[in-house]
Amino acid sequence: MIQSAYLKTNPNLYVFLPLLYTVWSDTVLTPSELTTLSGLINSQAWLTEDERNFLLAQLNPNTPPTADDLMAWREEIKKVKGQPGTKDSLVDLGIRLAGLYGNGSLGDTLQKARPSLEKIEATLGFISHEVVYNFQDVHETITSQQATQLNFEVEALTKLLDGDQADVIRKVKTIISDPEFQYIDPGDLHTYRTQVLKWCSYLAEQGYGLIAYPKAYGGKDDMKAYFTIMETLSYHDLSLVVKFGVQFGLWGMSVYFLGTEKHHKKYLKDIGTLALPGCFAMTETNHGSNVKGIETTATYNHGSKTFTIHTPNEYARKEYIGNAALHGQMATVFAKLIIDEKDYGVSAFVVPLRDKNGKLANGVTIEDCGRKMGLNGVDNGIIYFDNVVIPKENMLDRFAGVDEEGKFTSPIASDNRRFFTMLGTLVGGRIGIPRSGVAACKSGLTIAIRYGDQRRQFGPEGGSEVPILNYRTHQRRLMPKLATTYALHFALQHLTERFLNRTEEEMQEIEALAAGLKAFATWHTTDTLQECREACGGKGYLSENRIDALKNDTDIYTTFEGDNTVLMQLVAKSRLTEFRQEFSNMNVFTILNYVAEQAKTSLTEMNPLIVRKTDEDHLLDPEFQLNAFRYRERDILTSAARRLKRHIDEGMDSFDAFNVSQHHLVEVGIAYVERIILEQFQQAVEKTVDRGCRNVLKRLCDLFALYHMEEHKGWYLEQGYMEGVKTKAIRKLVNQLCWEIRQDAVPLVNAFNIPDSCLSAPIAVKG
Amino acid sequence: MIQSAYLKTNPNLYVFLPLLYTVWSDTVLTPSELTTLSGLINSQAWLTEDERNFLLAQLNPNTPPTADDLMAWREEIKKVKGQPGTKDSLVDLGIRLAGLYGNGSLGDTLQKARPSLEKIEATLGFISHEVVYNFQDVHETITSQQATQLNFEVEALTKLLDGDQADVIRKVKTIISDPEFQYIDPGDLHTYRTQVLKWCSYLAEQGYGLIAYPKAYGGKDDMKAYFTIMETLSYHDLSLVVKFGVQFGLWGMSVYFLGTEKHHKKYLKDIGTLALPGCFAMTETNHGSNVKGIETTATYNHGSKTFTIHTPNEYARKEYIGNAALHGQMATVFAKLIIDEKDYGVSAFVVPLRDKNGKLANGVTIEDCGRKMGLNGVDNGIIYFDNVVIPKENMLDRFAGVDEEGKFTSPIASDNRRFFTMLGTLVGGRIGIPRSGVAACKSGLTIAIRYGDQRRQFGPEGGSEVPILNYRTHQRRLMPKLATTYALHFALQHLTERFLNRTEEEMQEIEALAAGLKAFATWHTTDTLQECREACGGKGYLSENRIDALKNDTDIYTTFEGDNTVLMQLVAKSRLTEFRQEFSNMNVFTILNYVAEQAKTSLTEMNPLIVRKTDEDHLLDPEFQLNAFRYRERDILTSAARRLKRHIDEGMDSFDAFNVSQHHLVEVGIAYVERIILEQFQQAVEKTVDRGCRNVLKRLCDLFALYHMEEHKGWYLEQGYMEGVKTKAIRKLVNQLCWEIRQDAVPLVNAFNIPDSCLSAPIAVKG
Repeated sequence: MIQSAYLKTNPNLYVFLPLLYTVWSDTVLTPSELTTLSGLINSQAWLTEDERNFLLAQLNPNTPPTADDLMAWREEIKKVKGQPGTKDSLVDLGIRLAGLYGNGSLGDTLQKARPSLEKIEATLGFISHEVVYNFQDVHETITSQQATQLNFEVEALTKLLDGDQADVIRKVKTIISDPEFQYIDPGDLHTYRTQVLKWCSYLAEQGYGLIAYPKAYGGKDDMKAYFTIMETLSYHDLSLVVKFGVQFGLWGMSVYFLGTEKHHKKYLKDIGTLALPGCFAMTETNHGSNVKGIETTATYNHGSKTFTIHTPNEYARKEYIGNAALHGQMATVFAKLIIDEKDYGVSAFVVPLRDKNGKLANGVTIEDCGRKMGLNGVDNGIIYFDNVVIPKENMLDRFAGVDEEGKFTSPIASDNRRFFTMLGTLVGGRIGIPRSGVAACKSGLTIAIRYGDQRRQFGPEGGSEVPILNYRTHQRRLMPKLATTYALHFALQHLTERFLNRTEEEMQEIEALAAGLKAFATWHTTDTLQECREACGGKGYLSENRIDALKNDTDIYTTFEGDNTVLMQLVAKSRLTEFRQEFSNMNVFTILNYVAEQAKTSLTEMNPLIVRKTDEDHLLDPEFQLNAFRYRERDILTSAARRLKRHIDEGMDSFDAFNVSQHHLVEVGIAYVERIILEQFQQAVEKTVDRGCRNVLKRLCDLFALYHMEEHKGWYLEQGYMEGVKTKAIRKLVNQLCWEIRQDAVPLVNAFNIPDSCLSAPIAVKG
Repeated sequence: MIQSAYLKTNPNLYVFLPLLYTVWSDTVLTPSELTTLSGLINSQAWLTEDERNFLLAQLNPNTPPTADDLMAWREEIKKVKGQPGTKDSLVDLGIRLAGLYGNGSLGDTLQKARPSLEKIEATLGFISHEVVYNFQDVHETITSQQATQLNFEVEALTKLLDGDQADVIRKVKTIISDPEFQYIDPGDLHTYRTQVLKWCSYLAEQGYGLIAYPKAYGGKDDMKAYFTIMETLSYHDLSLVVKFGVQFGLWGMSVYFLGTEKHHKKYLKDIGTLALPGCFAMTETNHGSNVKGIETTATYNHGSKTFTIHTPNEYARKEYIGNAALHGQMATVFAKLIIDEKDYGVSAFVVPLRDKNGKLANGVTIEDCGRKMGLNGVDNGIIYFDNVVIPKENMLDRFAGVDEEGKFTSPIASDNRRFFTMLGTLVGGRIGIPRSGVAACKSGLTIAIRYGDQRRQFGPEGGSEVPILNYRTHQRRLMPKLATTYALHFALQHLTERFLNRTEEEMQEIEALAAGLKAFATWHTTDTLQECREACGGKGYLSENRIDALKNDTDIYTTFEGDNTVLMQLVAKSRLTEFRQEFSNMNVFTILNYVAEQAKTSLTEMNPLIVRKTDEDHLLDPEFQLNAFRYRERDILTSAARRLKRHIDEGMDSFDAFNVSQHHLVEVGIAYVERIILEQFQQAVEKTVDRGCRNVLKRLCDLFALYHMEEHKGWYLEQGYMEGVKTKAIRKLVNQLCWEIRQDAVPLVNAFNIPDSCLSAPIAVKG
């Protein structure tokens, strides 16, 4: 052991103390390093024999210093530590230490010995100025210093996001911040469901249930506000959102859009005030995505002018029906209309389920779906109909009816077209759900980003711990999600506007847009909340911090209102036959030729200079970004069309050809949706007047564009649209943008302006 | 309308009926198509003027046929439908129909008119032989026909997977299939937690709690069996697994591995029999990943030879501690040892929490963590210590202690090394958790794949619906997950064996391997269960089908036993300093030069022929696959090392340099783990004697290899290791392998041999 006594009498040996401390406290020497080190000590001519032996003894692995020795050494060395930030080497410290204890004359010797001492240090592989931080009390780094900045006015951005709906948003936020809306534990299903119904009734009392219905029935004809309400409610409990959507959206709007005036008069007001809770009974156990295949029958009885609603087998029972297990008194039931044993395809009927006291109607059996992954405040049920008779006027007869003579009537002859026209009127659900999902993302990101800005873990040697949001991987996980969430905000605004101002001709395009954005946004929701959970670690796992509920409640969003994979294929088929009105028709193929030709000629030529261009101005140029997205969209569409055509030309059954290309078709859908989203985001940036907001939105838009390009870099490289130098430059810029946006991240989530009572998460709500 | 009467008298017009039916039932004609069609009808010289006008009238959009007309037409056409599979054109059908109603002489005219009729058909863009399926009752396609096959003996594969642990597995399965182990609703926390404790005690009664402990204390010294039990229990409730792991693993093994004989004698038997429930209190609110930063203190009192355990502030409370809220009577508490105001770093102490009646010890305060995203059968709690005094012998003193004179003693001088040596003994948790996660994957995949094999949705026109597992996107979602699950099975067996047969020198490597596999496997678990949920649609959302619990219970696996992102960085640092024993030491950098040099010279030259080689033999060659993985592993490691060195040489603080490269470092870890997994899977295939098993495992191994290559294709293209033709060929082969493995998928999940009572999901358990 190094005895202080020996050192005190041979003070020049202090020069080795920092080296020895570091060797013993931090590393284990390999035999070869030991040999080298011993050699170097032996070569120090200025040491006495005795001193040399003393030093060599210190390197003996069989006689390590004690913990107390090390602590004492450290205290010694700290006496000569430099000012914070000083980049001394261990040798510098050693020479100062020797100077402290020795007399002046030794100093010269040591300065002469410096080169060989430094060689020892280098041999041990220390980065000297890193090691010395161990002896300082402060160690600042760029990583440590990064912090939240305020580069734009948060209120201005909120205003921009809320747009002309600010008033509705404010009102809804006020209601859901009321103490009556305090969250409850989802453990007891009955309590939870009762509470959610109660919340719904508060909203109905304020007139929010009726808002989209015609003024004649107490409404305000304000569909835009309806979507805003769905979205704003999504900052609160998602069961409430779905219960609200089932009652006023699915149930109410099926009556509104599939029924005629007699139904509106009879039902709409009661539905909108929640006097008449009801269901939307479309999905059957065996038929979810393939609604056309449902088997429930509605058989017309000429004599009594009634329909008999019947569940022919257990797989034809209506399943997952919201509001059915407990509260629903009526349901819009989708069933195949049978007249005189002829099947006229799927139509909708209003069928009573239970009376106001909860007594089930004759022939109706309902089972409770029980506990679910989430949305446990919604009472989903399974409905069986055993020859339930309903009057003729209960048929929702806007698109199909039975006349007085018992003949089928419809303005649309084709089964197919009637079916898709009917479903098309219900497209609103595919707008409400993604908007709800994106709102859930906003909550999740607010929680995770605020937490990441506060939570510290690890740090530089000798320095304080660093907010985890300063770590690059953490930024990589959350910043692109934040950018995509902003992007989707604008894209869904666009979709809503298009839907509200639709013409008949645009319906098919809007349906495809809604299907694609629904799929993209809800997958994004699932991914984002998963990242948020992991980014919050154990805190993210505690239900009190809300990510549990946000994640589990929205998990089904990728399935209901259309399974995302199926929807993306619908989008692709619509793109393939874009000016056809039969978007799911697989039989029309000349169009494929057309698309292939058109795309081939309209492709931008790939410029050999552009594929390698890596400067920032170029990569941040909106035109470059949009061109890249457009190229991808068109090329994938064209190649899918060519591929389908080739298979079919070679004699493959078209069903098989579509199956072989299914993965490709999903990419067609995604590429289309991504282009739309980028286009809308760029336009939103363009339109922003406030300079601070515009700057930060432009950066988010750049991150959205480049992140998704990076995601598809394999494809771009395969196509030769980019070369490796360019994809690498994009990756680097994505990292850089994540780093920059991190500083705006907290203000950016604050701009979502989610009430603290809704977030409720202790890790996100600061006192 | 087409009046039958008119047709009957002009039977040659029947030739148009199939065309007209198809036009009206499936499409909407554009104005230009209408013009073309009218032109073509006008050009049919064999029609009379009257007939021509009649036909043109049929195309008037203002007078569409009624639904009844269309149904009648369809019935007419069905009279001349061909045999199933016949590929007639609409014109074929029309001519046959005209023949049916007309006299022989007309037939010749029609045959002559055939070319121009076919032109009409072509103009409308029908793929004739597809359209005619509408009139047939059967329509078989390759997609429809795909089905489960039995190409290998399921029992043989089970035997291979179970290996020498078959007996333990069988016994544990028998226990968890007992009616006492029936699942319960997680709604009521108290009931659930009580049940889980009861289940644990059943297992303890069978001697499973003690199994890993020394025989002297009633155990069997069988660590291997312990891991097998953890894994097999994971087919049942995951709360049980974690409760079991906390009690017998974390609590018991901290006493076993950090304590000395006196502790073993005193505690191990009671722990293993569950007579002494306990906790592992390491994590604090402010310190999870960075354990070294914990703030709880254990101050030595010389006079009384005791320690005072104290929580200095609310952020230093022990959080998320399993078994703490209700059942734990003692805890291994990690605290900084303070002697005479000197901090000797983190050590472990046994601290009583409550007596057998649940009464809390003096100075101990415990809060319940409440509801969590999952694992609600485990009673996690928050522990505060207010100057709790414990006797000296309660220090777990294998690596650090206080002698009779009150001096600190330790066989390891360096704080750092002592700390990591101590943590290293607990690496078993990083083996148990990924094995549990992969078992959960096996359950999820069994449920999703059996369901996908049965569930039918959509199908070819006129054909029956198709099992959803026959769809390519569905296969793409599940088959690579199945392959990776099998791959991880073998890799985790390998890790277990290495751990069981470890030498001191290998420990660091094994720790890195465990960290990497833990991170990779638990991320895989989260991803897989997410896919399973979506793949089962609404059924996957119902709790009865188990994916809910599997997903939510395992979600925290990516966080506990080490946050995955942090672990992957540990792996990377270990790889960078692979023969150093200080795996987390950031100060040693000469090694970076070494790695960079070594890797540069050992890289396989890229052969310009190989980068474009696309034949199947080549892509399925294990050597090619492993070389590609190895190349990636080495290249990423080298470039990370170079990048760090460059930054540091340029004067960047090493903490910042690591942060800038963090994303890159995570890739280093992933590439390393993937190479290990592939290597082990290939070896497992090699060792398999049974031909059927070997074939199917080889295919799974190929899919694993190529799927992950495809995942990294952007990287391979950037590096020039592959060209676009090759990555495209890989994608195609991945699709092909998914298609082939789908046929083995049900037997492959059956080989996991999970008890039906554990799966319990109605959609997976067939009567």
